[in-house]
Amino acid sequence: MTFSALDSELLGPLFATDAMRDVFSDRARLAGMLRMECALAKAAARFDLAPPELAPAIEAIGPDQLDLQQLGRDTAVSGVPVIPFVKAVQKLLPKDLESAFHKGATTQDVADTALVLQVRAALDLIAGDLDAVMRDLASLAQRHRGTPCVGRTYGQHAAPITFGFKVAVWLSGVAETAEKLPDLRRRVLVASLGGPVGTLTTFRKKGPAVAEAFAGELGLGTATLSWHTGRGRIAGLGAWLAELIGALAKIATDVASLASTEVGEASEPHIPGRGGSSAMPHKRNPVSATIILAAHAAARGHLTTLFDAMAAAHERPPGLWHAEWHALPQLFGLLSGALREARSLAGGLVVDADRMQRNLEATKGLLFADAVAGRLAPKLGRGKAHEVVEEAATRVRDGDVTLQQALERNETLRSEAADFDLAGAFDLQPAIDAASVWVDRALAEADRVRALLPPNQSTGN
Amino acid sequence: MTFSALDSELLGPLFATDAMRDVFSDRARLAGMLRMECALAKAAARFDLAPPELAPAIEAIGPDQLDLQQLGRDTAVSGVPVIPFVKAVQKLLPKDLESAFHKGATTQDVADTALVLQVRAALDLIAGDLDAVMRDLASLAQRHRGTPCVGRTYGQHAAPITFGFKVAVWLSGVAETAEKLPDLRRRVLVASLGGPVGTLTTFRKKGPAVAEAFAGELGLGTATLSWHTGRGRIAGLGAWLAELIGALAKIATDVASLASTEVGEASEPHIPGRGGSSAMPHKRNPVSATIILAAHAAARGHLTTLFDAMAAAHERPPGLWHAEWHALPQLFGLLSGALREARSLAGGLVVDADRMQRNLEATKGLLFADAVAGRLAPKLGRGKAHEVVEEAATRVRDGDVTLQQALERNETLRSEAADFDLAGAFDLQPAIDAASVWVDRALAEADRVRALLPPNQSTGN
Amino acid sequence: MTFSALDSELLGPLFATDAMRDVFSDRARLAGMLRMECALAKAAARFDLAPPELAPAIEAIGPDQLDLQQLGRDTAVSGVPVIPFVKAVQKLLPKDLESAFHKGATTQDVADTALVLQVRAALDLIAGDLDAVMRDLASLAQRHRGTPCVGRTYGQHAAPITFGFKVAVWLSGVAETAEKLPDLRRRVLVASLGGPVGTLTTFRKKGPAVAEAFAGELGLGTATLSWHTGRGRIAGLGAWLAELIGALAKIATDVASLASTEVGEASEPHIPGRGGSSAMPHKRNPVSATIILAAHAAARGHLTTLFDAMAAAHERPPGLWHAEWHALPQLFGLLSGALREARSLAGGLVVDADRMQRNLEATKGLLFADAVAGRLAPKLGRGKAHEVVEEAATRVRDGDVTLQQALERNETLRSEAADFDLAGAFDLQPAIDAASVWVDRALAEADRVRALLPPNQSTGN
Amino acid sequence: MTFSALDSELLGPLFATDAMRDVFSDRARLAGMLRMECALAKAAARFDLAPPELAPAIEAIGPDQLDLQQLGRDTAVSGVPVIPFVKAVQKLLPKDLESAFHKGATTQDVADTALVLQVRAALDLIAGDLDAVMRDLASLAQRHRGTPCVGRTYGQHAAPITFGFKVAVWLSGVAETAEKLPDLRRRVLVASLGGPVGTLTTFRKKGPAVAEAFAGELGLGTATLSWHTGRGRIAGLGAWLAELIGALAKIATDVASLASTEVGEASEPHIPGRGGSSAMPHKRNPVSATIILAAHAAARGHLTTLFDAMAAAHERPPGLWHAEWHALPQLFGLLSGALREARSLAGGLVVDADRMQRNLEATKGLLFADAVAGRLAPKLGRGKAHEVVEEAATRVRDGDVTLQQALERNETLRSEAADFDLAGAFDLQPAIDAASVWVDRALAEADRVRALLPPNQSTGN
Repeated sequence: MTFSALDSELLGPLFATDAMRDVFSDRARLAGMLRMECALAKAAARFDLAPPELAPAIEAIGPDQLDLQQLGRDTAVSGVPVIPFVKAVQKLLPKDLESAFHKGATTQDVADTALVLQVRAALDLIAGDLDAVMRDLASLAQRHRGTPCVGRTYGQHAAPITFGFKVAVWLSGVAETAEKLPDLRRRVLVASLGGPVGTLTTFRKKGPAVAEAFAGELGLGTATLSWHTGRGRIAGLGAWLAELIGALAKIATDVASLASTEVGEASEPHIPGRGGSSAMPHKRNPVSATIILAAHAAARGHLTTLFDAMAAAHERPPGLWHAEWHALPQLFGLLSGALREARSLAGGLVVDADRMQRNLEATKGLLFADAVAGRLAPKLGRGKAHEVVEEAATRVRDGDVTLQQALERNETLRSEAADFDLAGAFDLQPAIDAASVWVDRALAEADRVRALLPPNQSTGN
Repeated sequence: MTFSALDSELLGPLFATDAMRDVFSDRARLAGMLRMECALAKAAARFDLAPPELAPAIEAIGPDQLDLQQLGRDTAVSGVPVIPFVKAVQKLLPKDLESAFHKGATTQDVADTALVLQVRAALDLIAGDLDAVMRDLASLAQRHRGTPCVGRTYGQHAAPITFGFKVAVWLSGVAETAEKLPDLRRRVLVASLGGPVGTLTTFRKKGPAVAEAFAGELGLGTATLSWHTGRGRIAGLGAWLAELIGALAKIATDVASLASTEVGEASEPHIPGRGGSSAMPHKRNPVSATIILAAHAAARGHLTTLFDAMAAAHERPPGLWHAEWHALPQLFGLLSGALREARSLAGGLVVDADRMQRNLEATKGLLFADAVAGRLAPKLGRGKAHEVVEEAATRVRDGDVTLQQALERNETLRSEAADFDLAGAFDLQPAIDAASVWVDRALAEADRVRALLPPNQSTGN
Repeated sequence: MTFSALDSELLGPLFATDAMRDVFSDRARLAGMLRMECALAKAAARFDLAPPELAPAIEAIGPDQLDLQQLGRDTAVSGVPVIPFVKAVQKLLPKDLESAFHKGATTQDVADTALVLQVRAALDLIAGDLDAVMRDLASLAQRHRGTPCVGRTYGQHAAPITFGFKVAVWLSGVAETAEKLPDLRRRVLVASLGGPVGTLTTFRKKGPAVAEAFAGELGLGTATLSWHTGRGRIAGLGAWLAELIGALAKIATDVASLASTEVGEASEPHIPGRGGSSAMPHKRNPVSATIILAAHAAARGHLTTLFDAMAAAHERPPGLWHAEWHALPQLFGLLSGALREARSLAGGLVVDADRMQRNLEATKGLLFADAVAGRLAPKLGRGKAHEVVEEAATRVRDGDVTLQQALERNETLRSEAADFDLAGAFDLQPAIDAASVWVDRALAEADRVRALLPPNQSTGN
Repeated sequence: MTFSALDSELLGPLFATDAMRDVFSDRARLAGMLRMECALAKAAARFDLAPPELAPAIEAIGPDQLDLQQLGRDTAVSGVPVIPFVKAVQKLLPKDLESAFHKGATTQDVADTALVLQVRAALDLIAGDLDAVMRDLASLAQRHRGTPCVGRTYGQHAAPITFGFKVAVWLSGVAETAEKLPDLRRRVLVASLGGPVGTLTTFRKKGPAVAEAFAGELGLGTATLSWHTGRGRIAGLGAWLAELIGALAKIATDVASLASTEVGEASEPHIPGRGGSSAMPHKRNPVSATIILAAHAAARGHLTTLFDAMAAAHERPPGLWHAEWHALPQLFGLLSGALREARSLAGGLVVDADRMQRNLEATKGLLFADAVAGRLAPKLGRGKAHEVVEEAATRVRDGDVTLQQALERNETLRSEAADFDLAGAFDLQPAIDAASVWVDRALAEADRVRALLPPNQSTGN
């Protein structure tokens, strides 16, 4: 299965998308490293700090010219991939350009900048998915704005809501995280160029200017100063990814429950061959929810690793930076699968409004106990109102009557609140009305957030 | 020690501040719950949904009128603190107001809104500390803008930087997190009012208006819709707190290393009685760094709990919401101690510039090997330049000469680069110059961020 | 609420037991520190390394003679509680014994040994709870050994089991962890005595002998050598506590689901006033499950902190050891509440066997689809058998017939397998038989494990 | 880089071993799944529950006959790999055996049993590494049993120890975890055979017998009952792996510090091309320590995922089980690299005893301050003894004298303790003696533990 299920030929297709896999492929990494070196050559050349021929010479080299397996073997010796990479590229350059290559930079500049290029491509993919998920959830919430269903707390029937409201909560969770994306991009999509100890000594006082030019070549921002050991942006990125997975996990948790045999109010979109069991062909397991929940359970662990890495010693620590490599790309992988499945759910969830209605009736009116007591309170006083409802509720639990029937027969009610609009207290409309206004707010907010997202680029990095 | 060291009479003063402890005291919690109910009464009254006398009657009740121990015992039975709280308050209200009290709200509205009031007071405290830490770090960085010291990667001497640059990296880490505070406040400082299942059914279509009025009474914002199960804002808050602790942990890691006997470049401010050992009176242990690093090690765990809680089922989950209570306040407690100690370090770190100079010389010029090779490359070619430096470096390691002396005797250098400015290659000035321009950027950025922080309030919540 | 909900007067009684709270009180900590010093005095005296009067003099001092608040203030200065503790005790000793007090030991010896004494008392409490939980779960499993109910996978009805089997799985999870307790005690209940740097230099070659005598005085074991920085035993202890919480969380997850309105097969024991809602008086929330699940969500975070602490530098690290104080006692606190609630569930779970039966019938025989297909395969061939069942299952889903009725009308079946015992394929007995033999195994294993547990001591530490 | 650095062609060789990679390859997984089905066929045949021809027919199929990429695509649809696997194998079987294949088992039985076979092979590899690491650490500790060096607490020089003692602490940490391996194997190396809902209904009361026979065929144990949702053994396995990584991280932390330029007491074994820097050719970075510390930082995260999975709902949960796939194999991958590097360190650490001696002298005798004060106390009284040493220590810090010289000039000492053996108080021998006896204990214990390990098998699974 490989060490990570995400990378397995057998299991990987279940948990991550091919598009995201391409972004984090070794080849894309090498391509990013080459782009980084090329941008450095261009920037340095602008300040006469590198020969103008260097950048075109680097540009002419493709990642496939590098022997990945040999680089891997050399990395296991050297301790970082950049040293063998630099040597391998130098061999492909004209002799006289060799010494100018990689000048001023350090291992971490190459690795981190290449990573940021991958992150940009990955965030582009995510933005596209976010837009689609929000669009489809909005449509689903709109469609079921007034479809009554049971609200549940602690697993118990509590009071009526609408299914649109439930979806609006899902939508709102996704939108709140999505809203942070532009700011996150600004913080995270910054190039790394600090040289051996972060000060970019080679370029002396021109350092900031070269760094800005370098970042500009790549379309990236520049940090205030070297972030070799300033890993807050990576931890923050990880937190955002985990938060988004968490927002999808809320949906998945609800869907798995709604799709359970006893609740049966929704089911995952029917995909031939999906959700069966090797032993029980009659089943339809919630596969999308499973993938998302597995991603959620795995994501948090990676988060601790990324926050750990913030305590980086001096100008580069032994181990903590490398631990990020074990964690960050997997968060993107987990998210890619979770978003794919969330799109599927948002676009194709099969909703059973009849079952929702039947479930509303399953407790024979007890769902309205609170509403009834509240309406009775002004007439009977709060204490007596509760007593009346309690007594009736006991009858419902013991026998076959509904709460409305039990209350109709209640002596106190008949004598002291004869004009009470009992049927009105069992009306779903107030709950629907109340739910609907919140749905509208969520839809408007989701529209606003979607407009903030970067346009769905298909160019990648 | 109590279950949490933060709450211990013996250990708590070491790890958390009294001011933060007050914010998260049971009394402050009860006060917040009362304020929440009072605001609800005011808001409802504005829409004629509650009697106007209710709010003043609640306002007249102080938290000390409630029997905390009894509430605790009752909470252990009921499962949430709000049920006994509501009953206890009702007993203190005029009989005719009893039934109007808490109307429309649910347990989670009270608990979450009270929590947000505590969070606001806590963030105010943090803002004050952040301002002070940034101010003092900026001053320290400015003072040592040009103080040369060793840059270290993987624990090895790498190349010269300035101590001001190192502090600028610390400052920048704090500033990057601090910059997010205004946006965080906007997201997190929102009231909770959703009623039993989030739709605020009691108020029907007036729900959003009542919710806005309610939040307005408390000076809080309003969420798009109920966040009973939308816990991204709490997870995001936790991530910010952990990120800030992480930024301080970077400082603490460096200080602990700088203060080590062998490095000896800085020591924690001298506080009589601090840092001794029960067995070794001659020692001066880095206590501030210890407290911060312990906070960092503990913080990440709480973070996983908060992200976990995002997968909340339906309209209120069993357990995940309650788990937040185990985690979030402790992050504030850990941060309070870490910030107090960071203030102490930022304001009083004892810097030994002479020792820094001696450490620069400890490797007898090897620190400049890279710079020398780089300067020689144009004259000798990169390969030969490296060979020359390698050969000289070997002599340094084997004997008592410095790198400069070894190079002076090098045949190749003498014959092929006789005019090479050898002394210039060992000049610290380029490293100082390079470092200084980055320090200036960090100082300017910190000024910008400090201006974004909310004014340092002393009123609490 | 205090920083930890466990320590709150308002919330603490809900989440932790008073008995466990006593074990981890500051007073118990101080008492443990005094006991440690007394044992050291006794052991040293045996080798003529301390005056014989010292131990009785220490023994005469009670924790209440120490000013806890002053110790707390002094700890905040000194950085560890042991330095002010030693000074405070010395003031209470006869002048001539002062210099012999604490001789040979270091801060960590006192703190860790006192902690181990608390751990022993806590493990005693846990052993008692484990015994009770296993006894009551065994009784519940035995009682429902043959009570048929639905087996569910991925939230879907899968095939019949018995409720006793489900409980046997719970029991088995608890027993597997409980089985490790004797070995855990052996590993963890070891005294700490290493002196300043772990070598117990003061006692030279007598170090091991003194250490053994010291541990013997406390009824503890001795480690191979100082565990000042060998924190695997603490990490392992944390893992065991978290594993036990996890085993209880399995129960809680199932109970919360079984108690849900739609499933309704079990409910938590009725405790007056428990599980209500401030807004919905008709509800009965699963409070025990909530407490356990909250403990589970919070426990894992503490675990990462404890494993973190293993990378302790040199002879004592700055921060990582202290981080254990933030984490370990809370695991005990969380477990104490979880075990209390698990006892309540094991002893009083209300099982609704009728509802289980109705749920078995809810899918009108589809639950037997797999069994039927399996029995038909030898007659029709696997492919055709599945086709037949599939076709019948579709009819069930579309209409009002049961699977048995649909199959009775199936043409293929009638013509090609007329003698097929259709009714037999819908018999629950095979499932009951299969389940029961596993229940018996679990009961036997639980008996075996219970006999391994230390006798339920009531003496504490 | 692929999602996991462990799986990357570029980075993987740095972080994990090929042998462990083979164990967790997709091919090995498929081979394990085939072995599982074959063992089931054999066991069932023994009870006449499967045709005797089935097992040989399965045995004839090799994993390479299965189209891995197609299985991956089908898994992405079906949600679990076992469904397409069963279909693919059935196509390769004689028609008449098809319906007997996989009979009685469920997806999880196949996946979990195959996993356990991989775990067994992985634990065999680990046992071999453990033996070698302990052997080499023991030899290193023995060699430096009496090599004096500085003991450091909180990064400060504290008191003398021997380097052998430090290594003995490392050894002891590894041995404590290694000692648990036999018990871990007993708990974890159990087959899974529960059928659809864990009761193995197909075999009715013969279930346990079939399960035992099945496990016997694979050389595995049998659980009390189905562990489909009893995931404590997997969590416990994860904790053991993380604990072992933690024990190695202790070593790596120390090595990184010892190898730092300022301390310089040890360096990693010289491997040509290792530890250089792309920018600083003179450096020798501690690569082994880096790999181990990165593993440690990443391991804890996976641990939270595994403990999370214990709260598995009913007879199979959606998501939590799958999350294990994201976590467990990576712990083995991380450990494999960490053990490889630990072997390298244990076998080849370059120790600089001269530098240790120089570091002992660096504080000019202050290291003995505590010992001197202790020896003086009986003569001068504790208070005056401390005063004398304090005064002398101040002179050492201010000037160029050693503590011994300063004390020689001390008036109080001269007048009141003229016969005091001052030189004896600065003797290293007592510290060496004290350290050595602990080294001997650790060596004996390590020998005992090594004898407990399973013989180093080279056959794999």
